[in-house]
Amino acid sequence: MKVITFGEVMLRLSPPGVERFVQTDSLTMHFGGTEANVAVSLAQLGLETAHVTRFPDHALGRSATGYLRRYGVGTQHVRYGDGRLGLYFLETGAGSRASQIVYDRVDSAFSRITSTEIDWESILTGADWFHWTGITPALSQGAADSLLAGIQTANRLGVPVSGDIVYRSNLWQYGRSPQEIMPALTEGCTLILGNKSLFSELYGVVGSTFIEAGRAMMRRFPTIKYVTDTKRNSLSASHNQLSAKLYDGSTVHKSRVYDIQPIVDRIGTGDAYMAGLIYGLLTFNDPQRAVEFGSAASALKHTIPGDVNLATVTEIETLEAGDSSGKLRR
Amino acid sequence: MKVITFGEVMLRLSPPGVERFVQTDSLTMHFGGTEANVAVSLAQLGLETAHVTRFPDHALGRSATGYLRRYGVGTQHVRYGDGRLGLYFLETGAGSRASQIVYDRVDSAFSRITSTEIDWESILTGADWFHWTGITPALSQGAADSLLAGIQTANRLGVPVSGDIVYRSNLWQYGRSPQEIMPALTEGCTLILGNKSLFSELYGVVGSTFIEAGRAMMRRFPTIKYVTDTKRNSLSASHNQLSAKLYDGSTVHKSRVYDIQPIVDRIGTGDAYMAGLIYGLLTFNDPQRAVEFGSAASALKHTIPGDVNLATVTEIETLEAGDSSGKLRR
Amino acid sequence: MKVITFGEVMLRLSPPGVERFVQTDSLTMHFGGTEANVAVSLAQLGLETAHVTRFPDHALGRSATGYLRRYGVGTQHVRYGDGRLGLYFLETGAGSRASQIVYDRVDSAFSRITSTEIDWESILTGADWFHWTGITPALSQGAADSLLAGIQTANRLGVPVSGDIVYRSNLWQYGRSPQEIMPALTEGCTLILGNKSLFSELYGVVGSTFIEAGRAMMRRFPTIKYVTDTKRNSLSASHNQLSAKLYDGSTVHKSRVYDIQPIVDRIGTGDAYMAGLIYGLLTFNDPQRAVEFGSAASALKHTIPGDVNLATVTEIETLEAGDSSGKLRR
Amino acid sequence: MKVITFGEVMLRLSPPGVERFVQTDSLTMHFGGTEANVAVSLAQLGLETAHVTRFPDHALGRSATGYLRRYGVGTQHVRYGDGRLGLYFLETGAGSRASQIVYDRVDSAFSRITSTEIDWESILTGADWFHWTGITPALSQGAADSLLAGIQTANRLGVPVSGDIVYRSNLWQYGRSPQEIMPALTEGCTLILGNKSLFSELYGVVGSTFIEAGRAMMRRFPTIKYVTDTKRNSLSASHNQLSAKLYDGSTVHKSRVYDIQPIVDRIGTGDAYMAGLIYGLLTFNDPQRAVEFGSAASALKHTIPGDVNLATVTEIETLEAGDSSGKLRR
Amino acid sequence: MKVITFGEVMLRLSPPGVERFVQTDSLTMHFGGTEANVAVSLAQLGLETAHVTRFPDHALGRSATGYLRRYGVGTQHVRYGDGRLGLYFLETGAGSRASQIVYDRVDSAFSRITSTEIDWESILTGADWFHWTGITPALSQGAADSLLAGIQTANRLGVPVSGDIVYRSNLWQYGRSPQEIMPALTEGCTLILGNKSLFSELYGVVGSTFIEAGRAMMRRFPTIKYVTDTKRNSLSASHNQLSAKLYDGSTVHKSRVYDIQPIVDRIGTGDAYMAGLIYGLLTFNDPQRAVEFGSAASALKHTIPGDVNLATVTEIETLEAGDSSGKLRR
Amino acid sequence: MKVITFGEVMLRLSPPGVERFVQTDSLTMHFGGTEANVAVSLAQLGLETAHVTRFPDHALGRSATGYLRRYGVGTQHVRYGDGRLGLYFLETGAGSRASQIVYDRVDSAFSRITSTEIDWESILTGADWFHWTGITPALSQGAADSLLAGIQTANRLGVPVSGDIVYRSNLWQYGRSPQEIMPALTEGCTLILGNKSLFSELYGVVGSTFIEAGRAMMRRFPTIKYVTDTKRNSLSASHNQLSAKLYDGSTVHKSRVYDIQPIVDRIGTGDAYMAGLIYGLLTFNDPQRAVEFGSAASALKHTIPGDVNLATVTEIETLEAGDSSGKLRR
Repeated sequence: MKVITFGEVMLRLSPPGVERFVQTDSLTMHFGGTEANVAVSLAQLGLETAHVTRFPDHALGRSATGYLRRYGVGTQHVRYGDGRLGLYFLETGAGSRASQIVYDRVDSAFSRITSTEIDWESILTGADWFHWTGITPALSQGAADSLLAGIQTANRLGVPVSGDIVYRSNLWQYGRSPQEIMPALTEGCTLILGNKSLFSELYGVVGSTFIEAGRAMMRRFPTIKYVTDTKRNSLSASHNQLSAKLYDGSTVHKSRVYDIQPIVDRIGTGDAYMAGLIYGLLTFNDPQRAVEFGSAASALKHTIPGDVNLATVTEIETLEAGDSSGKLRR
Repeated sequence: MKVITFGEVMLRLSPPGVERFVQTDSLTMHFGGTEANVAVSLAQLGLETAHVTRFPDHALGRSATGYLRRYGVGTQHVRYGDGRLGLYFLETGAGSRASQIVYDRVDSAFSRITSTEIDWESILTGADWFHWTGITPALSQGAADSLLAGIQTANRLGVPVSGDIVYRSNLWQYGRSPQEIMPALTEGCTLILGNKSLFSELYGVVGSTFIEAGRAMMRRFPTIKYVTDTKRNSLSASHNQLSAKLYDGSTVHKSRVYDIQPIVDRIGTGDAYMAGLIYGLLTFNDPQRAVEFGSAASALKHTIPGDVNLATVTEIETLEAGDSSGKLRR
Repeated sequence: MKVITFGEVMLRLSPPGVERFVQTDSLTMHFGGTEANVAVSLAQLGLETAHVTRFPDHALGRSATGYLRRYGVGTQHVRYGDGRLGLYFLETGAGSRASQIVYDRVDSAFSRITSTEIDWESILTGADWFHWTGITPALSQGAADSLLAGIQTANRLGVPVSGDIVYRSNLWQYGRSPQEIMPALTEGCTLILGNKSLFSELYGVVGSTFIEAGRAMMRRFPTIKYVTDTKRNSLSASHNQLSAKLYDGSTVHKSRVYDIQPIVDRIGTGDAYMAGLIYGLLTFNDPQRAVEFGSAASALKHTIPGDVNLATVTEIETLEAGDSSGKLRR
Repeated sequence: MKVITFGEVMLRLSPPGVERFVQTDSLTMHFGGTEANVAVSLAQLGLETAHVTRFPDHALGRSATGYLRRYGVGTQHVRYGDGRLGLYFLETGAGSRASQIVYDRVDSAFSRITSTEIDWESILTGADWFHWTGITPALSQGAADSLLAGIQTANRLGVPVSGDIVYRSNLWQYGRSPQEIMPALTEGCTLILGNKSLFSELYGVVGSTFIEAGRAMMRRFPTIKYVTDTKRNSLSASHNQLSAKLYDGSTVHKSRVYDIQPIVDRIGTGDAYMAGLIYGLLTFNDPQRAVEFGSAASALKHTIPGDVNLATVTEIETLEAGDSSGKLRR
Repeated sequence: MKVITFGEVMLRLSPPGVERFVQTDSLTMHFGGTEANVAVSLAQLGLETAHVTRFPDHALGRSATGYLRRYGVGTQHVRYGDGRLGLYFLETGAGSRASQIVYDRVDSAFSRITSTEIDWESILTGADWFHWTGITPALSQGAADSLLAGIQTANRLGVPVSGDIVYRSNLWQYGRSPQEIMPALTEGCTLILGNKSLFSELYGVVGSTFIEAGRAMMRRFPTIKYVTDTKRNSLSASHNQLSAKLYDGSTVHKSRVYDIQPIVDRIGTGDAYMAGLIYGLLTFNDPQRAVEFGSAASALKHTIPGDVNLATVTEIETLEAGDSSGKLRR
Repeated sequence: MKVITFGEVMLRLSPPGVERFVQTDSLTMHFGGTEANVAVSLAQLGLETAHVTRFPDHALGRSATGYLRRYGVGTQHVRYGDGRLGLYFLETGAGSRASQIVYDRVDSAFSRITSTEIDWESILTGADWFHWTGITPALSQGAADSLLAGIQTANRLGVPVSGDIVYRSNLWQYGRSPQEIMPALTEGCTLILGNKSLFSELYGVVGSTFIEAGRAMMRRFPTIKYVTDTKRNSLSASHNQLSAKLYDGSTVHKSRVYDIQPIVDRIGTGDAYMAGLIYGLLTFNDPQRAVEFGSAASALKHTIPGDVNLATVTEIETLEAGDSSGKLRR
């Protein structure tokens, strides 16, 4: 099983523990990006993965590559060139104090990607899944074009495509709107992560409930077989409740609700869900189990420092089976 | 708006995380002192502040000055001289294990202050508030005398004065009792932080409820316009509930109750309340809002390592408005 | 009061905080072993202790000795020789993610101990208690033989003996079964920590309740005066409930139930109970108080990093008296 | 004595010790910028300083302000606005391995400065010195314009001006050449740090020796009273030799040569020289002593982590007086 | 260009900086093994590499794999199975205090390898070089047999083979002597790293000088085209001098002598030489340049923490060209 | 062999590496005191030791005890009582920047010792050596009296006494001069560490050379059999040269000169010499070897972080034998 992901990877810099930026003198390094996070999670679950991206050709770009490799993601398709390494600064909150992110990703090497730089044909040949998110087309025309080429190649090669249609309004700075760009990308997708307000805002597709909105999306984009979403109840920065649902065209499969306390690191928990769901759909012939596996994966990610889910199949299955006792394993 | 504070600043030394002294090999440095903590909080809220104190004239005294400056507190009135830097050793507890403090502040440079060393006239001219606490007069005759001179100067210049009349019996070692010293300091105060048992013990002012005791204080000390106090319910070292109330001569304004879990650092949370309250009284024409703002400030302080509250106005207002969800802010 | 303990001490290596092995680049060192953990706890409580063990004769073996000495345990009976230092790698979990241990203790210097290496006569003369656990006889014939010699010497000298009959099936690799070895070790014990399923599995002693099983044990092993056990309800890796009970031949003394949140370090909490109980039995003439003291000791250990309980008598008594408020102690 | 400096301040991120980027998981934070480094040095020497710059209006910009304040630099003239915080990544070398810098400063908040944003009149009124470097005009038209306005205001107010005419060719990206920009900035300077090849390249001013080139500069720019330069002999990343010379229109004053081993941090050592020289010129009426003081300051900076020189007057004078014994001071 | 290496990889644990084991409470993690060190170096130089080894199938074995991957070494041929992860404890010295190693590698997963476990045919097909050392056959019969199978397969496929015939007498514990095992492994080697005393001890091949001994080795083992060795002059733990020589059957090519001060990490510097030499022989058609490149690579390794050389081709060529100035590179 | 030492132990707090106080946010903990340093060194060399001191009865006093125990020093004679724990703050220099100490030891628990608190009779019975320094009588009358009682008891019991007559003028604050106090302490000493200017200043004993001054001391104090001193040539904070000499009444035995570079930690190197010398005098019947052993011990201490020498006999003998190559020991 081989999964290809495409998107920017940023250097994440955060103070130790729950210190604030104004008081810290050192920063912990992680690397992350929503699509690469999915790739790392899937690599931990034992799938073959490769992440397609573009890094600056200097020591920090090489460090980013090393990070992906360390966690088992194939980096043979990484391109190196001009531009900076995208960064984000994360201050981790606690209790009633929210975590905060300062992005510093403008004009990154990734955003300077051009549509002809990636040889999608060779990359996607033999792949079993291709995953993208709404962050990529928001970054630059080149990124949007490259992505579209990737999705269309996947379609031609019969590779299933998942899209997390996350929309961050402050990213779309290059002169195009998501309404112009997103529909073409959504064509040919098999699985969409989103909710009814996004469907309405991005595509004008409306539905008063998740199921109706999902059904409407499937009518508008006939290749879509699954629509999924997560639900988070934020009680505090240290305490959340989480569940997920998956509509397969006939049934909405709902996961159990996880009560998550304490939260070690909330970043990348949505990507952990997506990775778990993709793993489930590729591995089990059972949408209910796939959504349960994805939710358990996401719940476990909350306990792991960094952007990426380093949980194993065994750990996820233990939690999915209802054992959240955290009993010492010798 | 300019606020002047006066008091000792100590070097705080604590093991990393929740380690115990007997097992640690390194100590984390912070600086703190109840009055300076108020100044730092107010500086974060955007007010101009200056802290008046006395440090030893060596590298550690300079480090203490640097700490105050880093957080925006004016240090132009700091005096340097003989004596040591006061210290305290803090071991942070968790759950059922209490935090512990070992004080080592005897004969500090601050306690050697003399009443003529501070030019209160020039310091307080143009100030909008002066804050002191019951720690200062407990340290030495010179500290008590200097404080009295400051309060009287403030009165003469029409600068409102707040006093947190905290009483630590083991501090009063120089031959005077708080009953001899505190009344003169309380004369001319605008705002007092204390409770009925303190009022009774220090001044012989009795009242069976907070409101009655407050009323009695106002009769005894006619300049007092506000009496305030906080209420803490300690469920464990990691879980507290907190609220505050403010009596303005007619009404007791009560804040909402904050459920605080987990507690990152409990030290300085009372000072954070005081700073928030002073900010509120200076900024809003609304005692209820001031006490709410102070309580929210104090609640947030529990999530921040160190003695000082590094929360911003926006963060406090968000919490005050009822959003304790801790949702990631991008 | 002097307590002698006997068993292996391992170097414990764990990533900082709640990091996973695959992501960490440094490891925190502690040392621990179930019997030595009891000795350290008792030393913190003010008793004289000495731990009998065998370390490799190199810098790491010397470091292990230094660790025991740091916490007040006598190391005059430590032997040095060939073999490795036993290790274990601990990954600390959080919430729904369990802590994990990878043991690496095969062929340790301790397991190479021979029955004639220890001069039990001189060690136990003047001792007030001797403690062992079921880990030791599982490691090697030499360890089992040495232990048996120790217990028999204690019996001859009239030193009370406690045994925690913990059974780890994967340890018994040297060709003997616990059913062959454990009964002779249990002869002559005064106090046994275990439960009815262990009694049945190891000795064929059955009883449908704790009290009945305890009574049956006392019939089978007439020297036993106390049977004890702890009960843990694992809600998550960060949240447990704990209590203990002690049967003295007539009554089952039950402790209060501690709700423990957050858990800083769960390792060694059973040993902390055992140490507290031994202290209680040696110090108070009151089994109920002993079991309460042991339970409070164990509850506090959950808040302390490392394998060993560094709580003091005062702290334990405060908690035992019902004060779990974690209020700052100045 | 009050010195004003103007220029960009960057967040410096470096691996601990001499680790390489590809192997590190954490970064140490410092802040630095050639002009601000001069201000910090001067503040340590006891002068009043204020640094004029522009930071992004977020937590990291506020951290940069806090850094300057911590070391006593006035930040009352800092502007906040759009744009990023400039960064640089420093890998510290050792022996034959060179230190390496990756700059990431494009489109910083500072480079977005506009010439009307700074109220030079009020800032420079009462100042005793104004310092700039060739980095600033290389960053953007707005930075060059702002600087020119500052220099001209200083001239009008009679404030002496020093310029370090460092030229980094890769910085000049906004369409103007240093040959177009630098001459107008150099008009009205009192002190120039540069060498004959720079004089030739930037201004077409030639001279076959330092003294002749200096004389030619003074003819071309009649306000110049001093021309200075440092000389570094790099034996390895850990071992350098350093000296300086100052031409005052009649004599070349040469400092002693410092043999520097080991080098703790080479960054900012030129700025330390400049600060020491400015201090010397402002304080001693003796060019020889000024250049000696500057050289000793620079030599000491090599022993101090970070960009800024935290040496005191006493320490510099001790070294200047020939005592490089490093004897413990109690 | 693709290089295959084969051998054990150990977890290296060392105190921070130059602390001693008896005083440290934390350990820094690296992974290393002489053959894998060669692979990592070559990967940094841009060659394709894959390391063949056997790890335990648990989190630490997976961490070891991640370490190799992070630095670009292919891990597709790593086997997982029973046994422990080999460890070594390194205390880094300084000046007159020597570094010390405590090995703890007995019965590792690697030593349990069996000769049929590795599919050498597929691994070595298409490879350009195969490297082994004398550590491997010292560990177990299975390791020796596996290695012999690898060398013979390489010979059959025409892949050049290098052997570092390092001899550690304390390793050979499984009943065979190096004199029995090494000759068959040396058959078919192209390049041998060793000296005349080793040649004599292991093979009875004698020669009174390096060149004569090399010539004798080539007569005894006709496939050998190169014999090489390094020479180290240890002035202190912080100061060494290093050079290398390469005999190609006609000429002894000697490198320049590097004066290395300070030494950051001496471990793996021989492996760095070997990697540089292999790179040189594969890339340049010039034995002199190859030995110079190898020596420069080794010299740089002394400045890099950990077992592996993270120097780049550019850095090595700069040093090889004589620039050891360590000048800052922007 | 059992050695008793007596004196204050202070908590040493220092920034990591070579950071300055004004820039650090954490401090590394060590404990040290000149006499206890001797005891720790001797314990590493395998002698039985016990240190007599007085600590405050709180967690930090207990930590100090734990520190001594960790390194094998007997703490059975430590007294606990009122007063503070003495502190000193150490900033470690490099190259031309000197290390700096800020003492904060006034009114320590040790200085409050009373002459009747120590049962010297039982402590010194069976001892083979007693060591003191000139720090102790400088601290308080009680300390001086206790020391005198100890020396006199040692004399009565026939225990040899060594005194390091270090004189720090700023310590003598309690109203007595060293000229009043030191002679009585020096009576009955066997070995004195000092130089001719000290002999002259403290006792009025003059001699124009070391040998003449030593001879004069032996005339004045007939019990003295050895006079010793070290000689340090400070080239920089990172580079020293060190040697020692010992006069035994007939011959001056001089050690070789050690060139020490780099210096890791210079504190306690004199105490390391003293410990080595005492060990040598107790163990070898050869004054020359004793002074060589002491010097080698002192040279090694410069490479070890902290106040105490953790070198072993083997390491010292290796260096003493002339091997300063620092070659890796496996």
